[in-house]
Amino acid sequence: MPRGRSVLAHLRESRPSLLHAVDPFKVPLPEVVAKATALHELGFPGVLLASTDWDNFEDVVGRCVEEIHRAAPDFPVLLHFPPRAGVGLPCVNAADGMLCPFLLRSTDPYFVWRSYVETVRRFGEVQPQPELIDLAALTFGTDERSRSVLAVEPVVPSESSADQLLHVMQILDLHGAYLYSRYEAVPLEICRRFRAKMSRDQVLFVSGGVRTAEQANAFFDVGADFVVFCGALECHDWRERLQVLVEGSRVAQRPPSLRTHERSRSAGYA
Amino acid sequence: MPRGRSVLAHLRESRPSLLHAVDPFKVPLPEVVAKATALHELGFPGVLLASTDWDNFEDVVGRCVEEIHRAAPDFPVLLHFPPRAGVGLPCVNAADGMLCPFLLRSTDPYFVWRSYVETVRRFGEVQPQPELIDLAALTFGTDERSRSVLAVEPVVPSESSADQLLHVMQILDLHGAYLYSRYEAVPLEICRRFRAKMSRDQVLFVSGGVRTAEQANAFFDVGADFVVFCGALECHDWRERLQVLVEGSRVAQRPPSLRTHERSRSAGYA
Repeated sequence: MPRGRSVLAHLRESRPSLLHAVDPFKVPLPEVVAKATALHELGFPGVLLASTDWDNFEDVVGRCVEEIHRAAPDFPVLLHFPPRAGVGLPCVNAADGMLCPFLLRSTDPYFVWRSYVETVRRFGEVQPQPELIDLAALTFGTDERSRSVLAVEPVVPSESSADQLLHVMQILDLHGAYLYSRYEAVPLEICRRFRAKMSRDQVLFVSGGVRTAEQANAFFDVGADFVVFCGALECHDWRERLQVLVEGSRVAQRPPSLRTHERSRSAGYA
Repeated sequence: MPRGRSVLAHLRESRPSLLHAVDPFKVPLPEVVAKATALHELGFPGVLLASTDWDNFEDVVGRCVEEIHRAAPDFPVLLHFPPRAGVGLPCVNAADGMLCPFLLRSTDPYFVWRSYVETVRRFGEVQPQPELIDLAALTFGTDERSRSVLAVEPVVPSESSADQLLHVMQILDLHGAYLYSRYEAVPLEICRRFRAKMSRDQVLFVSGGVRTAEQANAFFDVGADFVVFCGALECHDWRERLQVLVEGSRVAQRPPSLRTHERSRSAGYA
């Protein structure tokens, strides 16, 4: 991604695409960097660093971002971590973007939106900051972990409840939605409805339990912009698995060398 | 109000009550101060400084707040002004509170909530700041002025549209609602529905076109916590008119000397 470019604009132009989220609190630093480099070479639009747990954030994540940028300059690094009261969203300024979760189904307004305000208050007017990408973050299926950490209730998978959430997303003019299921799967029909009702400018992420290209393809078929896999690469043969996922995906990743020539094609989406 | 006390808690305990909004860009400073002093003596819980227009904000409003505080120490001064892009909500730190409008019916997300984020970003972590009181701000009746300045559409006065807005208020956990009609009147049934569906902790302001005690009483009867009058005192005989309004109101204002003894009665509300 050229320097100075908006990460959100870059994501819009890069869709549809697979994405990989690495947990820097689980995966050793050299492996994080090797994975980011591999993703870059395969034409992924960026790498997510993500975890429900975090500690000693600036040291761990700061080093990750620095090392990834050294190995793959201009490859966007996006942070995706839950906020904590008193801190807000954890952040390192060298990151290119932050996916900011608006947990519209949390019973605690801190996680709905006040954490975002706390984050921005702590930033003040200091620059540079990572670009903030504001996403309705919605979970599907029983998830005691999200409930205990973020007071989140899963979405009732019905049209009317989806529509209510979409209405809130429109009022707040969020940049997109991140649909997630920790132990089950995001319902395809819900994904389809979100894509149908969201504006073209809004980006739709789907995540949770994706381990095969077939699963990813099913989400692409109903309109997901980004299908995120995480644990699927937490193994020794991650290079082979990544290759299988990319080759089986109906969505062609675009290696960086082809990006410029193919931009017109991807721009046709928006 | 004792120093260090939360303005919101003070408002909750002071309801129901009349309130007066003075426009410091229209009313000369000595009259603003005289009015604030009169309101204080009559037992009002505070004074609003409010205007759709503003300019040279810090000088004009800063002096008002300073002079009111000198004349009536500990009498809360609340700011209520629309934000402007690049500035956020205009603010002077000496003010006790700010009514922050979340214009849920604006088609411009800046006025829905992003202006609030901009305001807080500009604050950074600097203290003291006025207490922020987050209110769903909703307009009723044709209002070209609000449309042109704030891209606001009036509320469709139906139960279902009220309920949709109440749903958003609950998700965001706003501190209350400010219902306003510039040229007509807030529908009584809408006011009743908001009070019925809002939590006890949330405060309900009604404003616009209130010139008589009968009008105010009608709003109190359907559950308004605060009935705000503005233009009703923009005249030379404002002292007499204020007296008539207070005497005709079914809600007894509580002079400061009685406050302590009567607190138990008012606290019974919440």
